[in-house]
Amino acid sequence: MTLWALRLEYDGAPFVGWQRQAAGLSVQEVLEAAAARLNHGVPVASIVAGRTDAGVHAEAQVAQLALAGDFDAIRLREALNFHMKPHPVVVLQAVPTPAGWNARFSATRRSYRYRILNRRARPALLVGRVWHVPQTLDAAAMHRAAQPLLGKHDFTSFRAAACQAKSPLRTLDRLDVTQDDDIITIVAEARSFLHHQVRNLVGTLKLVGDGSWPEQRVAAALAARDRAAAGPTAPAEGLALVGVGYPTDPFAADPIRSASPLQP
Amino acid sequence: MTLWALRLEYDGAPFVGWQRQAAGLSVQEVLEAAAARLNHGVPVASIVAGRTDAGVHAEAQVAQLALAGDFDAIRLREALNFHMKPHPVVVLQAVPTPAGWNARFSATRRSYRYRILNRRARPALLVGRVWHVPQTLDAAAMHRAAQPLLGKHDFTSFRAAACQAKSPLRTLDRLDVTQDDDIITIVAEARSFLHHQVRNLVGTLKLVGDGSWPEQRVAAALAARDRAAAGPTAPAEGLALVGVGYPTDPFAADPIRSASPLQP
Repeated sequence: MTLWALRLEYDGAPFVGWQRQAAGLSVQEVLEAAAARLNHGVPVASIVAGRTDAGVHAEAQVAQLALAGDFDAIRLREALNFHMKPHPVVVLQAVPTPAGWNARFSATRRSYRYRILNRRARPALLVGRVWHVPQTLDAAAMHRAAQPLLGKHDFTSFRAAACQAKSPLRTLDRLDVTQDDDIITIVAEARSFLHHQVRNLVGTLKLVGDGSWPEQRVAAALAARDRAAAGPTAPAEGLALVGVGYPTDPFAADPIRSASPLQP
Repeated sequence: MTLWALRLEYDGAPFVGWQRQAAGLSVQEVLEAAAARLNHGVPVASIVAGRTDAGVHAEAQVAQLALAGDFDAIRLREALNFHMKPHPVVVLQAVPTPAGWNARFSATRRSYRYRILNRRARPALLVGRVWHVPQTLDAAAMHRAAQPLLGKHDFTSFRAAACQAKSPLRTLDRLDVTQDDDIITIVAEARSFLHHQVRNLVGTLKLVGDGSWPEQRVAAALAARDRAAAGPTAPAEGLALVGVGYPTDPFAADPIRSASPLQP
């Protein structure tokens, strides 16, 4: 048995999310079905760094699985990509994992990027990749309102009812709002996030951006520890997992050219 | 009658190209059908800056049409966008045109961007937006090979057989090849281009990038004035019209927020 770390890119649109569900096709199912074909038909179970929801994209998801037999890393990647066709899921890199490394529990940083298309006209080229908000948003105000959320807090106000985490405490390391022409980008980084945390943060900051809320109300919503005190959940399609950090990056030493994630 | 200039974004994938054809749906047909609904059902004819081919995208195409009746510019844009649904075509800006201005003949610069996804794994997120080239390309060599093509030349070697232009002489102002991670971007600018000129330039530079051709052979292909001396036509899906320049920009004075094109 060899344990493998895989760096994955996928379009979240056609999937029920990362995790297997009876309700429809998941990214996990596509990956594990391809892996089973390389494992003499024996089912393969995978571990993942970030269990993305339905419709959420990934530019650099990290998964882990064990396969019997010896594979060359490049051939393994090519074979998985072949068997995952025609689904919009690809392995960018495959590397044998160091002893004790775990795709989920060894991760010390998850980076998400949320994009808002802020213009009157609906998207023609970025359909399914952005949240279209026609009212003019004040990105600078959104950024200022976000800064009091940095650090360790009880994020109950930004947590989905279905969230299974034992604790609502999380340490938010980055929540930047920037604007480039009609694209507003929110980058959120933390060791880990609660269920829907990023989308609930974005849905709340949007209320500041469109003038519905004063900036200070975001910090007040956090302090309330009440989901009803914060804003609505932003749509999934604007969200992408863009990076997972590890104390020792298993992909760093790999010479494969397609090493780093796509630029936004 | 008011003459209007329209800045348009569209996804080229579902269309036979800009121009009306019996063979299928064109962007022109979608726009003119929407305009006719605002013109008491009277057919409307449009003029366009760049007649993009099937599958070629636009982030900032410029079209011109005449409508009876008075329209507020913002309402006109919204009404056209409403009637063009669900097609992936939107008007970003509509402005009344100055006297004597012509979307096609007044244009002094067309800017095209071509993107190559240069990695082994097929695209999951940029499907239909890039040319996927799995062999590693040398972007710096491609850029060097491109520079002798700048200036005024007979571009017969890079011209489609179907090209209807009277002269094969064109002045190429910019042909830059840059790389950002696994995306190679080629930006081409000229007052005007021959049919397939950008795609034929890209298909030829790719031969330098993958080592099939020495750099100098690109200039030799130009000098040959023979289509057979240059490389193949690169696929349409990597190409986008990203800007049209005019001595006096009709859109510059317009306060509409969605003024400038999307970033790549």
